[in-house]
Amino acid sequence: MIDNSFVLRGGIAYSENINGIVTYYRGYLVCVDGICKGAFVNLPDKYKGLKLYDYGERLIIPGMTDLHVHAPQYTFRGIGMDAELLEWLSTYTFPEEAKYSDMDYAIKSYNYFSEDLRRCFTTRAVVFATMHNEATIELMNQLEKTGVITYVGKVNMDRNGGEGLQEASAAESINATKEWLAAIEGKYVNTNPILTPRFIPSCSNELMKGLGQLSKDRGLRIQSHLSENPSEVAWVKELVPESTSYANAYEIFDTMGTIQQPTIMAHCVYSGDEEISILKKHGAYVAHCADSNMNLTSGIAPIRKFLEAGINVGLGTDVAAGSSMNMLKTMFITLQASKMYYRLVDSNVKPLTFEEVFYLATAGGGSYFGKVGSFKDGYDFDAVVIDDSKMHSMRDMSIRERIERMVYNDADAIIKDKFVKGKKVYTRME
Amino acid sequence: MIDNSFVLRGGIAYSENINGIVTYYRGYLVCVDGICKGAFVNLPDKYKGLKLYDYGERLIIPGMTDLHVHAPQYTFRGIGMDAELLEWLSTYTFPEEAKYSDMDYAIKSYNYFSEDLRRCFTTRAVVFATMHNEATIELMNQLEKTGVITYVGKVNMDRNGGEGLQEASAAESINATKEWLAAIEGKYVNTNPILTPRFIPSCSNELMKGLGQLSKDRGLRIQSHLSENPSEVAWVKELVPESTSYANAYEIFDTMGTIQQPTIMAHCVYSGDEEISILKKHGAYVAHCADSNMNLTSGIAPIRKFLEAGINVGLGTDVAAGSSMNMLKTMFITLQASKMYYRLVDSNVKPLTFEEVFYLATAGGGSYFGKVGSFKDGYDFDAVVIDDSKMHSMRDMSIRERIERMVYNDADAIIKDKFVKGKKVYTRME
Repeated sequence: MIDNSFVLRGGIAYSENINGIVTYYRGYLVCVDGICKGAFVNLPDKYKGLKLYDYGERLIIPGMTDLHVHAPQYTFRGIGMDAELLEWLSTYTFPEEAKYSDMDYAIKSYNYFSEDLRRCFTTRAVVFATMHNEATIELMNQLEKTGVITYVGKVNMDRNGGEGLQEASAAESINATKEWLAAIEGKYVNTNPILTPRFIPSCSNELMKGLGQLSKDRGLRIQSHLSENPSEVAWVKELVPESTSYANAYEIFDTMGTIQQPTIMAHCVYSGDEEISILKKHGAYVAHCADSNMNLTSGIAPIRKFLEAGINVGLGTDVAAGSSMNMLKTMFITLQASKMYYRLVDSNVKPLTFEEVFYLATAGGGSYFGKVGSFKDGYDFDAVVIDDSKMHSMRDMSIRERIERMVYNDADAIIKDKFVKGKKVYTRME
Repeated sequence: MIDNSFVLRGGIAYSENINGIVTYYRGYLVCVDGICKGAFVNLPDKYKGLKLYDYGERLIIPGMTDLHVHAPQYTFRGIGMDAELLEWLSTYTFPEEAKYSDMDYAIKSYNYFSEDLRRCFTTRAVVFATMHNEATIELMNQLEKTGVITYVGKVNMDRNGGEGLQEASAAESINATKEWLAAIEGKYVNTNPILTPRFIPSCSNELMKGLGQLSKDRGLRIQSHLSENPSEVAWVKELVPESTSYANAYEIFDTMGTIQQPTIMAHCVYSGDEEISILKKHGAYVAHCADSNMNLTSGIAPIRKFLEAGINVGLGTDVAAGSSMNMLKTMFITLQASKMYYRLVDSNVKPLTFEEVFYLATAGGGSYFGKVGSFKDGYDFDAVVIDDSKMHSMRDMSIRERIERMVYNDADAIIKDKFVKGKKVYTRME
């Protein structure tokens, strides 16, 4: 593909809204200058001059948005999973992140992360790096080459980081952040900076306030963690005794963002009514990380309550507390988690439907990036072509059924091609 | 490999008991006449004459036992997963199983199942077929060729099966069972019959009693389902009003088995104190199917309570309510489910540890087949050789860490070779 205007043909599925999945068997999907012009049963005449790529029986779905992933944790995913959050951080995570002062280490490790990100269902991601400027810039350099569109945060932490993973003071952390921003200014097309206070236990009041101010001054978005684990929630209450909730603590420091400049809060497992109203008021995004929340015995976030309150929700893999960057697996676990919330916690909160979870993984999280995550006219052309022929079937399956089946069998859904804004960023070698 | 006496070298991991995993880095694993002679740091002199196969950095673990899987459901796995049990059975499962009166259909579908079973981590399985004798025999013929050792049941159901999936009477069902047993007598080495009343809603009192008697007369084991879903539990109470619990209903019909001839009961999500004592008294096996129980919004079984009561427990994939035959995925979901039981249901019931779940998947379920599922001296030599090199790491990982990591990343654990009783039944073509 030389230019980014073309037509793809195949089994198309996407969300127009949260209530349904639109499908086309052997439909046409049009991309003009990197923008989707819609899906069609019959190709409109005006697009007949475009080059057609026929994918036959393969599936074509929107690229997915991973709203929360920790790049430096990728290479140790899947170990230490019998621990809960605070023990896991101090035993596994913080010692690992401390290694990113070593650039040889960072280059090699971030290459594993970036290459696997390029090959997975994700076309947009919001990424935590570490507190190290040089390694964070290396990560951004590598991500820029993948073609995946990202926000990346140099992490801020001036307390409770332990040996080798703590900035000396709030002022030093703010200065380092400004240096990082200066070093990358104008450097990337696809890779954007985002302010990243790790979470309140890692950031002094002064640092939090400084980041809130910097966000306002520079028009920069913020990402952080909120109400993930009972011990963490209790700790935040001790650290910011004047707060009425964990979310209110972020509010006090002016880091909850605005509708125009939304903050992403990962987890929100223990977000009650007050936090729901704070998240809503600020137009924040909840990055729902069900895999992580089950692995670290955190609990299950009440996603339907957030949706009913009109809060923006997307999905995050949260590697390495999440086990994998595969968004299909994250969708699968999101469905299981929401069924268990209904069954075990509150039978008034109905399980998320497959349609709803498909929406969250694509257009829900995608909206953080603008018109992203759908094949409606005017959306960025992010698409993944999938070969599901390894899963034999005895019946004629609808596109809807095949989409569901591949989510429940992520290992057998093979990505053939991946497009971001109409540019092919990955193709599988046979 | 011509004979079944040899030595394998690699990264070895297995359970000697439920509390720990024994590991050897570049250890030796000895097989003599299909029986394991143990794992060793240094190869004992007496085994130095045996042919050595060096697997280098690859992992070697015991084959796994899938205590509960429905062969005819395999090809529609992963669809209809927004439904609960009874709706899922009537909408998807029963109409599908009715098709197995057609032998062309059965031959093709069971070939997909058998070939994928041969290629997965499972070396022992306990399988539901359908009510059709001819198709069940076809399944057994195919399974015999895979080398995997199985129990297979022609399903009994004389009520509530709907169109095309119901035997005309208890007597007809019992007669068909006897004909099936006569047709396969002495036919197989690896494939054993098991009596299979689907569950009480599918079997009249007369049929249940007849099967209890047949089990006693022929020395045949029984498998069924127990206390999976709240609506099902309520229905059984209506159907057998004299029973004090669902398990007691099975007891009334003499189908709960004995320590020498143990019954497998799948699920046991809603098994309270009375059912726990019944399961224990009869030496029954609980087939814990966490994936299925989350997918169908059934709930989470209190596995630690069963273990503390001394009940036999193994894991089942329960395809197609379970999404996959991959036992690593089942282990992963078992861990997540048990963490959520602790967090959301009862904080006195601690989550299962990784060591415990590894044991359940190997030696726990394996014990149903005898000395199976460990590399202790005298156990059947069932082993799986795994290449996990696709998962890059920045640290030197212990064998224990690599075993945990592959469970949390099942898609990237590639099976190279699989042995059952010392016979290689599968080898991956590069």
